[in-house]
Amino acid sequence: MRPSPLSPNPSEFARQLGLRVPVIQAPMAGGITTPELVAAVSRAGALGSLAGGMLAPAVLREHIAAIRALGCRDFSVNLFVVDEPQASAPAVRAALQRLDAHFTALGVTAKVPERFCESTELQLDVLIETPVPLASFAFGMLDRAQVAELHRVGTRVVGTATTVAEAVAWADAGADAVCAQGLEAGGHRGGFVANLGHEQLGTLALVPQIRAAVGVPVIAAGGIMNGAGIAAVLALGASAAQLGTAFLCCDEAGTHPLWKRKLLEEPALETCLTVAFSGRPARGLRNRFMDEMAPFAGEIPPYPIQNALTAPLRARAGQVGDADHMSLWAGQAHALVRGAPAAQIVRQLVAEASVAAKAAADTCAAWA
Amino acid sequence: MRPSPLSPNPSEFARQLGLRVPVIQAPMAGGITTPELVAAVSRAGALGSLAGGMLAPAVLREHIAAIRALGCRDFSVNLFVVDEPQASAPAVRAALQRLDAHFTALGVTAKVPERFCESTELQLDVLIETPVPLASFAFGMLDRAQVAELHRVGTRVVGTATTVAEAVAWADAGADAVCAQGLEAGGHRGGFVANLGHEQLGTLALVPQIRAAVGVPVIAAGGIMNGAGIAAVLALGASAAQLGTAFLCCDEAGTHPLWKRKLLEEPALETCLTVAFSGRPARGLRNRFMDEMAPFAGEIPPYPIQNALTAPLRARAGQVGDADHMSLWAGQAHALVRGAPAAQIVRQLVAEASVAAKAAADTCAAWA
Repeated sequence: MRPSPLSPNPSEFARQLGLRVPVIQAPMAGGITTPELVAAVSRAGALGSLAGGMLAPAVLREHIAAIRALGCRDFSVNLFVVDEPQASAPAVRAALQRLDAHFTALGVTAKVPERFCESTELQLDVLIETPVPLASFAFGMLDRAQVAELHRVGTRVVGTATTVAEAVAWADAGADAVCAQGLEAGGHRGGFVANLGHEQLGTLALVPQIRAAVGVPVIAAGGIMNGAGIAAVLALGASAAQLGTAFLCCDEAGTHPLWKRKLLEEPALETCLTVAFSGRPARGLRNRFMDEMAPFAGEIPPYPIQNALTAPLRARAGQVGDADHMSLWAGQAHALVRGAPAAQIVRQLVAEASVAAKAAADTCAAWA
Repeated sequence: MRPSPLSPNPSEFARQLGLRVPVIQAPMAGGITTPELVAAVSRAGALGSLAGGMLAPAVLREHIAAIRALGCRDFSVNLFVVDEPQASAPAVRAALQRLDAHFTALGVTAKVPERFCESTELQLDVLIETPVPLASFAFGMLDRAQVAELHRVGTRVVGTATTVAEAVAWADAGADAVCAQGLEAGGHRGGFVANLGHEQLGTLALVPQIRAAVGVPVIAAGGIMNGAGIAAVLALGASAAQLGTAFLCCDEAGTHPLWKRKLLEEPALETCLTVAFSGRPARGLRNRFMDEMAPFAGEIPPYPIQNALTAPLRARAGQVGDADHMSLWAGQAHALVRGAPAAQIVRQLVAEASVAAKAAADTCAAWA
């Protein structure tokens, strides 16, 4: 029983997913998207997303159960599509050596982890056992059989694309919608052409090109912080708007207090794309670790290897409150972030979007 | 007689400038913005812009006269604010040596130009002698006295900003509006923090931040190719939308035929930001010259030195139809470009914007 195709019309798209508004709280890995955040967003009429990519299968199952226990039925789970990496011992040793000064500074002992990431296949098994309404994927592609298997249990599939080619590939694989992630977005670039040498497209350029290339609905992500941004991407042709950074300082978000404080109190901080923390380009508040690792960008092992190697460093930095070694993911418009309960933020977004869209429509109506 | 302040309301903004719609054809240097293009856009109810930055003062005067002779009163002139560069002879020799293989390949003789750029002061003198309704500036700042002098002759002043700080600086200097140029934009980055090492903000992230920081109207530029994009930036809070690449393939544009053909026939081409052609970051269709010069990005002399040194190379490349050595400036959404008379493009933009804005407003109205 493949779910019915999603409509590109935003109102119909929302209705089909049980939402009041076509607004999605982006999955943000690393403990941000607590079951409380996901449930609060969904209760407010938008779509909450659990970032499942870094969760062990058993924990993923627990979080899904916790969201349901909060009375939430309509939510999304995001996974990373990653192959178990082939890490050569010399490459890992070299990568650890490059981190040595940082480990020493924080009193962390370098070690080779037992494994570099969770198994995508085992995580997918959880989604087949305990089906969710929507599952989104980043970093790699599912194959047609995996998409069909999710469809069989009633789950709709969203693929993340940072280029037109990636969007077309997801549509061809059977995805029900494509998330078009512009370069303004905080956190990891979600496509599978991760190379920083490639063109990184802004949301305003990316969404209409993907819209023209695929028939499935397009979810716009990257740089959207308020209702005006939501109205803007709806005008661009998106079926829904996805916001991550806008929810980072929610009461319910599991964001580290120091991270929240930097976002709320230092609006002028620059962000940059870095491979330093994880081996995959990701956008965050620029800090010392990014700057000091920048010269080695070409030598850093790819995700998930570097990510696993820096995990103890990031964990310790969080414990001791060292913002210079934390991955403070944030989008380019983080200066507009708000601290409030998630439901209040959803309400504000909805009110602002209505005002902004009406103003634009009134302006254009006068041209006729 | 300082002109009255411009309203941030798009309809009022347009009315104050004698426009039917708050849509601006971006200035594009290098012979693109012919008097015919500027006049055709303005006659169609939008604002045509003459790119005056690379024109000798006498030629600038002629072009302004030619636009007026075409019956056009409401148009804009763009200038670059550049100091006469201090180029050391050894630095120029090294830069020429770096270009040597390319010169040889095209049979061009390397030479040190008599001067590296037109004089901004002499160009400004033309605008004081023969005042235009609107003058926009890029690459550097005017001082308050220069802005006041333009105001004295009835000319409104627009400053280009790629960051919030630049926008605030322009507003403080007395600019009547700020053009917020997102990284999607084709051609040169127009701000004065030109360093590629800095964060380059996407239009969707940049416009609302500048809107929140300054009281003057914000003109959004970068990645806008159709009416949906115009509706989007109006929803974001822009008072007008500025489109460059969207007009590159106009019948009236002086774009090289090969450049037009690549845009119209090769939508999948990547763009990239390069300093190779001019010494200042600019976005264009990626080609061999950009790729081969990329390793020397840190050594290339700044604008206008490199620009003057590569001028004969670019000129010859244009003559012989060698796209590998032409600067094929284009924005990130160039795949959506259209070839048509300028007036027809303006009509399409207007029609599309109305549809897109109304659809977004209808969607949001249902949320109430």
